[in-house]
Amino acid sequence: MEETFVPFRGIKDDLRGRLLCYKQDWTGGFNAGIRILAPTTYIFFASAIPVISFGEQLERNTEGTLTAVQTLASTALCGIIHSIVGGQPLLILGVAEPTVLMYTFMFNFAKDRPDLGQKLFLAWTGWVCVWTAFLLFAMAILGACSIINRFTRVAGELFGLLIAMLFMQQAIRGLIDEFRIPERENPRQIQFLPSWRFGNGMFAFVLSFGLLLTGLRSRKARSWRYGTGWLRGFIADYGVPLMVLVWTGVSYIPVHDVPQGIPRRLFSPNPWSPGAYSNWTVIKEMAKVPPLYIIGAFIPATMIAVLYYFDHSVASQLSQQKEFNLKKPPSYHYDLLLLGFLTLLCGLIGIPPSNGVIPQSPMHTKSLATLKHQLLHNKLASTARRSIRQNSSLGQLYGHMQEAYNQMQTPLVHQNSVTLGLKDLKQSTVQLASSTGNIDAPVDESVFDVDKDIDDLLHVEVKEQRLSNLLQAMMVGGCLAAMPFLKKIPTSVLWGYFAFMAIESLPGNQFWERILLLFTAPSRRYKVLEKYHATFVETVPFQTIVTFTIFQTVYLLLCFGITWIPIAGVLFPLLIMLLVPVRQYVLPKFFKAAHLTDLDAAEYEESPALQYNINDQDSNGTGPRNDQADDAEILDEMITRSRGEIRHAHSPRITSSTPTHDDMRPVRSPRVRERVVSPRVSELKMNMSPRFGGTGSESVQKTSPHSSTLGQTSRN
Amino acid sequence: MEETFVPFRGIKDDLRGRLLCYKQDWTGGFNAGIRILAPTTYIFFASAIPVISFGEQLERNTEGTLTAVQTLASTALCGIIHSIVGGQPLLILGVAEPTVLMYTFMFNFAKDRPDLGQKLFLAWTGWVCVWTAFLLFAMAILGACSIINRFTRVAGELFGLLIAMLFMQQAIRGLIDEFRIPERENPRQIQFLPSWRFGNGMFAFVLSFGLLLTGLRSRKARSWRYGTGWLRGFIADYGVPLMVLVWTGVSYIPVHDVPQGIPRRLFSPNPWSPGAYSNWTVIKEMAKVPPLYIIGAFIPATMIAVLYYFDHSVASQLSQQKEFNLKKPPSYHYDLLLLGFLTLLCGLIGIPPSNGVIPQSPMHTKSLATLKHQLLHNKLASTARRSIRQNSSLGQLYGHMQEAYNQMQTPLVHQNSVTLGLKDLKQSTVQLASSTGNIDAPVDESVFDVDKDIDDLLHVEVKEQRLSNLLQAMMVGGCLAAMPFLKKIPTSVLWGYFAFMAIESLPGNQFWERILLLFTAPSRRYKVLEKYHATFVETVPFQTIVTFTIFQTVYLLLCFGITWIPIAGVLFPLLIMLLVPVRQYVLPKFFKAAHLTDLDAAEYEESPALQYNINDQDSNGTGPRNDQADDAEILDEMITRSRGEIRHAHSPRITSSTPTHDDMRPVRSPRVRERVVSPRVSELKMNMSPRFGGTGSESVQKTSPHSSTLGQTSRN
Repeated sequence: MEETFVPFRGIKDDLRGRLLCYKQDWTGGFNAGIRILAPTTYIFFASAIPVISFGEQLERNTEGTLTAVQTLASTALCGIIHSIVGGQPLLILGVAEPTVLMYTFMFNFAKDRPDLGQKLFLAWTGWVCVWTAFLLFAMAILGACSIINRFTRVAGELFGLLIAMLFMQQAIRGLIDEFRIPERENPRQIQFLPSWRFGNGMFAFVLSFGLLLTGLRSRKARSWRYGTGWLRGFIADYGVPLMVLVWTGVSYIPVHDVPQGIPRRLFSPNPWSPGAYSNWTVIKEMAKVPPLYIIGAFIPATMIAVLYYFDHSVASQLSQQKEFNLKKPPSYHYDLLLLGFLTLLCGLIGIPPSNGVIPQSPMHTKSLATLKHQLLHNKLASTARRSIRQNSSLGQLYGHMQEAYNQMQTPLVHQNSVTLGLKDLKQSTVQLASSTGNIDAPVDESVFDVDKDIDDLLHVEVKEQRLSNLLQAMMVGGCLAAMPFLKKIPTSVLWGYFAFMAIESLPGNQFWERILLLFTAPSRRYKVLEKYHATFVETVPFQTIVTFTIFQTVYLLLCFGITWIPIAGVLFPLLIMLLVPVRQYVLPKFFKAAHLTDLDAAEYEESPALQYNINDQDSNGTGPRNDQADDAEILDEMITRSRGEIRHAHSPRITSSTPTHDDMRPVRSPRVRERVVSPRVSELKMNMSPRFGGTGSESVQKTSPHSSTLGQTSRN
Repeated sequence: MEETFVPFRGIKDDLRGRLLCYKQDWTGGFNAGIRILAPTTYIFFASAIPVISFGEQLERNTEGTLTAVQTLASTALCGIIHSIVGGQPLLILGVAEPTVLMYTFMFNFAKDRPDLGQKLFLAWTGWVCVWTAFLLFAMAILGACSIINRFTRVAGELFGLLIAMLFMQQAIRGLIDEFRIPERENPRQIQFLPSWRFGNGMFAFVLSFGLLLTGLRSRKARSWRYGTGWLRGFIADYGVPLMVLVWTGVSYIPVHDVPQGIPRRLFSPNPWSPGAYSNWTVIKEMAKVPPLYIIGAFIPATMIAVLYYFDHSVASQLSQQKEFNLKKPPSYHYDLLLLGFLTLLCGLIGIPPSNGVIPQSPMHTKSLATLKHQLLHNKLASTARRSIRQNSSLGQLYGHMQEAYNQMQTPLVHQNSVTLGLKDLKQSTVQLASSTGNIDAPVDESVFDVDKDIDDLLHVEVKEQRLSNLLQAMMVGGCLAAMPFLKKIPTSVLWGYFAFMAIESLPGNQFWERILLLFTAPSRRYKVLEKYHATFVETVPFQTIVTFTIFQTVYLLLCFGITWIPIAGVLFPLLIMLLVPVRQYVLPKFFKAAHLTDLDAAEYEESPALQYNINDQDSNGTGPRNDQADDAEILDEMITRSRGEIRHAHSPRITSSTPTHDDMRPVRSPRVRERVVSPRVSELKMNMSPRFGGTGSESVQKTSPHSSTLGQTSRN
């Protein structure tokens, strides 16, 4: 994405790019069939549960003017509209914490003014939304999103970690509050006796930690050793919603002597009660707001506009990171324009607006990567099995799979996107085929293990479509109808879920992984190198990593500290935006350019980014990890353990002449030579290459030890 | 051990064998220095906590006649005597559940007889102990322990699993009881209001699961990635006691409004109160017991004698399993004789007798194996570092280490024991040394990585000595003085500890591992083969494994069911002893002899046992696992994941011509060929061998693919 500030150009480009693949966005979604429900349910829960909780918070803060009904309605409405006419369908919209904070401040301001008061509060926020929409339009049209490029990994990941901290803080606060008397309740009820409060709090501990621990376990179900494959897959896909059900069930076990209110459950108003509709006609009241307040509304509007511009773009950016190998174009400008319209709409019907949310948006992309992997795997496996039955040779087998793979590709590919084919067959496979006889002899499963070897052929790809987003938004809307059921969920399960989301968002965040690296014992650092890991681990001296990480941590704590300041707190994104000039002008004075590139690649710097090298030929030949990993486990690891420039242990860089620094101790590097590459095999491979679906020349190139460092421009 | 029923011969043999190494038993213990405290503390907790709990149980059942004071006193007294004059110092003595059950039955019998009553109960049990001692003497003298050979793995592991089930049952019962009003307490106290009982129960859940989960985690601390090495080692060694402290501390956090009795804590009498001594003079009362009851005491005595004979011998056997490579001889006969004396002593002073306990005894051996490994590692590492500083060649380095190793060996070696040297250097190391230049060139750490490579050279060995046993028994005795502190431990922490002990005893139990194998998805069974695993996994058809395991499970459930029957329940060991003839005469009719040997090697069957082949040359050359494992982790795996005939993935058997059955899918066996062994290197190795401390001929022999199946007779 180039930086252009010509009015409307960004929006036009976005529209052109997304229209090209609009039809495929739908057909692709429907083609996935029933499996689309796995990411949909996963994101629905991640989206609905915080929105309900924020709704309860808003209800307390606005004395019942706004409730979970309004936050759910806004999330559903904006979600549905965005998924249909929005630009980037990977982006998930929802009412987020900053919105809740802003509305709380505005309520506190309004209720004390006699000429505004609680009655005209929503009408006044309507005006705030009008101004906000105006500012968003302006920013979208003038191409403000162009500078999203300057918003590098260092800032995005800091923001991601901050959100995780806020979620975790909410979980801990909620859990402690379970021991206290809730504000809006009658403290003389039996369940608020000290003894029952103690029991309630302890029960909350059991339920929260139960949900958190089982939820985290269930996400790893694919690598379990026990149970049949479909059960493991089912638990990995639907485990978290399932655990919410299970622990809600557990919360009903103590009935004997235990009063009704223990454990505490969600408190949500009945959406069918008469009062619940009062806000929908707020547009009529807007004329009654005194003109001074209409003008004054511009002040909170600027704050909200800055917040939304920032949150929306960063959420979009984090859901489109380079390592996902997306094929469809981004749409920052147009999405910001649409956000303006959505804000206007929400303001006029008196509900708090939604914007792009973290960590739900990147979680959405990750879950769609898992889906795409499963679909590709199944298709290729059936092709491979058919080929084997037809006594194909290894070359033919690979050709058939390449064909099947190409059939599954989106025909409309964005001009800048990376075109990935299948990866090359493992050298070991080829070697084996050649050793067991002629390379043209029929393959069997001892040479090509369908289930395992296909996973090695696949890159990370994402099932980019609109259906999952639409469905999850509709399900959020369905929550309004299902409110009586939602009320059965204990609040403590909610806190457990908040902690779960915070923890789920950590892996893959390089900032977080660097923090962990600081606490890793020097003698154990080689373990990091044995897994997929970011380039910087090998190329940047440890001391530099430490300095960089400490700088980032201090900055993070500063941002976190600011969120504790009552009114100014909501503006912590400004501090994060300040990172853009800091990164551009200050950091280069303290760090070498090459190190900065590895730690935090910025497109405005000239050094070519290292290519994401999971597709690196050599990493397959290494064997140990890939042999052990199974089915979607490799993918799980790739998309959770690592984003960004990624490297596998024993990748060619280690054996190259590039000096590695001593304090990282690169896994006994000289021993890498143990993997003897028989010359006969590479030769054979070159001879075979024409048969291998045209990837032959690449494969030859890749055997050169430096190929992984060849630059490749990223997609946006 | 041959089966001999010549009177006294067994005892004489035992005494002769153990006297030879008696002095070394002490010097060896003191030489270990401060490190001996790690296994000591670990076993002290595993020993004291159940004994206290059984004491409380006994107190409830005998209306206060016997308490934790008596059980602790018995455990300490018998432990100290056994550790000093006993035969096998690996055996841990303690008051166990069967003793508690027997004493309960006897109390219920006695209290209803007017001429016996509660007053003469202890005097009568004194007579029971006299008879028991008499029977134990007879069995010891007549060589009853000779048939312990017939008591095979199938029975021992079934017994181990049964004990684990009983511990777990106790944990669950205890946890449920936290919600109820305890029997001996005044139910009108404030903490027994329904509300506080609910809170107490929930708090108990938090504390129990807290202890269980953190305890299990801390045992794995050595493989953590974070923290410095000594901290990881400290946590792994002392983590469980530490966690008992931590969770006891946590139990003191809620003070506000919470009544004194929550959470419930250990209820133990003050050992310094006047009443606590009344039983020590029981010998004076024994004459007052009516003669009919003196004779009648023979009936419970036979039951106790059978129980003790069984428990004591099996505990001893399980603590001396073949895979521990013990060097000092067993002492079944003499230990049974001593047990008779101890029973007599306990009976005469009116305390319940102790006997050998499971799972504490095998836990003791395991923790001593870890200790020995650390000691050997440190010694060899300092030798290796000195050699490297002196610019030794790889051959000299190995020679120096062999020398240092030999210095650390016990000079007195039992005639039948296995003499193990260092394992051969890894082929990869030799290969590397030869490729980097002349084999005589000085080595550096890139060739021989001191910390990691030394672990590969070591077999499992156990620090066999008496000091840890003596110290733990003395610490149990110290508990009597520390009773005021012990009372601070919440009962719920106790239940968590019971569950911890049950789970800790599972790994390495092949019966348990076969049960897990039944639930392993067929497509994941190859994962079992990738780790250290028992021979049967490769050699016995899966269907046979299933049948055998189901038979064993049904038998286990039968035994477990019998423990629920009030009086007969205590005799479940008889059912387990029935397994001896079943194994010898019934099972061979249903299973092939070769399969039975692999599933359950019996010495009376002729087929040679497969050798424990961690020392197999080839398993080192494979690389992937050993490269990753570090420090004591390999050992952790070996002694926890596997007992008995063990195999590593890619062991030569896989590549040998032995047909493997299809349903186990042996990890893509043809691919093992990827590990190309350059002929030059093996040749070089043969030339080098004379320099390698005399192990040269062995190393050549081991490169033959069948060497691992060469039989080697076991030690007992």
